[in-house]
Amino acid sequence: MDFRGLNIAVVGLGLIGGSYAMALRDIKPSNIFGIDHDHNTISKAKEAGVIDNSTSDTDFILKKSDIVIIALYPKDTVDFIRNNLKSFKKGAIITDATGIKDNILKEINDCLRQDLDFIGGHPMAGKAESGFSHADKAIFQGANYILTPTEKNKKENISLISNMAIKIGFSNVILLSPEEHDKVITLTSHLPHIVAVALMNSTGDTKDIPKLVGGSFKDATRVAAMNSNLWCELLLSNGSNISTVIDIFQESLFALKKAIINKEEIILKAMFESAYMKRKEII
Amino acid sequence: MDFRGLNIAVVGLGLIGGSYAMALRDIKPSNIFGIDHDHNTISKAKEAGVIDNSTSDTDFILKKSDIVIIALYPKDTVDFIRNNLKSFKKGAIITDATGIKDNILKEINDCLRQDLDFIGGHPMAGKAESGFSHADKAIFQGANYILTPTEKNKKENISLISNMAIKIGFSNVILLSPEEHDKVITLTSHLPHIVAVALMNSTGDTKDIPKLVGGSFKDATRVAAMNSNLWCELLLSNGSNISTVIDIFQESLFALKKAIINKEEIILKAMFESAYMKRKEII
Repeated sequence: MDFRGLNIAVVGLGLIGGSYAMALRDIKPSNIFGIDHDHNTISKAKEAGVIDNSTSDTDFILKKSDIVIIALYPKDTVDFIRNNLKSFKKGAIITDATGIKDNILKEINDCLRQDLDFIGGHPMAGKAESGFSHADKAIFQGANYILTPTEKNKKENISLISNMAIKIGFSNVILLSPEEHDKVITLTSHLPHIVAVALMNSTGDTKDIPKLVGGSFKDATRVAAMNSNLWCELLLSNGSNISTVIDIFQESLFALKKAIINKEEIILKAMFESAYMKRKEII
Repeated sequence: MDFRGLNIAVVGLGLIGGSYAMALRDIKPSNIFGIDHDHNTISKAKEAGVIDNSTSDTDFILKKSDIVIIALYPKDTVDFIRNNLKSFKKGAIITDATGIKDNILKEINDCLRQDLDFIGGHPMAGKAESGFSHADKAIFQGANYILTPTEKNKKENISLISNMAIKIGFSNVILLSPEEHDKVITLTSHLPHIVAVALMNSTGDTKDIPKLVGGSFKDATRVAAMNSNLWCELLLSNGSNISTVIDIFQESLFALKKAIINKEEIILKAMFESAYMKRKEII
């Protein structure tokens, strides 16, 4: 698949959007445009050669762009599409990078122009820091990418976005329905973030915590230093799934606690063995 | 502090003991001896230049050793000291590497010869794999080391072991009572291990988990692929502390769940902010 001749716009040059813009250079599109409310960020991205044009004219950029990658917070993603509906190039493919899909897809599909094709996307990549200055295309290397196509999407466009993901470094592209995505991501992304915060907050007023931790605690709490504005928005929009998943997790935790307190060694080892086998499958 | 002229024995050349033996070369002791029930491991360690002698004569080694580092499982650590009590060199300093301290200290101090000095030690380092073939002195670089001295220990010996730890790469040596150690380590080490297992076991029969996870899940579950024999022994000997700590963690988790379900954004952000500030202190 050839991306030469195509113009690609990235909306929101933060950690994820900035990393996209950097990675997209590898697939040699005609132009990589950047849209950001912060003119400073646009200037930096232009100076660094990450984007090809420093215009702040969103209308101009969208009218020229065959693919638009929106890397904004969930609500802002919907608002951006609504507010710029008339500007998108006819037949443009639009995708996003938000970590929650079902509601967003409904809101976007309710207002989208018939000729446009919005394909929900979730690059499972990131780091604790945010903003363009931390953007790095290496975060995509070997990571997973979920697409949440619906019946409205054209097959060739799903294929194009899948190809783009692999070419910019992702290892796997997996297709899920928006509902399936939200359920599974609650388990594989929202839960470990919540657990990281709960672990940190469990330390109470224990002194010298930084000198008393090993790799297990450091790793499990790495994402506790997260972008709290983004994560609050994500989690608050997903209360029902989160409630279900926390209940499941607490059952697992309670089973372990019970086996430890009752000194049920065989049961405890079986639970360890099950976790071991599942974890070994994850690289 | 000078380690030249001293003989150091490492008992148990697994992941931790092997890494010790490798790291000890940097402080240039007269001899580094290795004791292991597996003759193959002794041969490999000798061939690799990690230890200086391939004798399997424990009595011979202990009689010559000024410092003995025992890197065995908790029960085996106590048994080794009991079974070799007569062999230790007069005035030898003995330390260990087990992740639980209160009971072990009591059992060892109940039987220890008066001239010997046992100082409980806990290097907060490791990795998922076990055994000499995975040993690597790099695991100690920048890690934390807890010593749990009692009134029985000589100050100069506590100082010597602290110095040794820093010289072989640890960043911090912190002194705690055995009881304090066990309480805090339940929080900073046992809990994240239990949480990792609970997270993995929460995935149930969800398909394609390896393709649906990002860094947060990978990091939080890394230690789920742990040495289950060692960890079962550790956790089963620490049921009371674990029960308390899991209760505290579940309270933190429940507070987050409540704020998310009730859409209490201000409360949720305050909990995130608290976790963020605490996590920023940990390198």
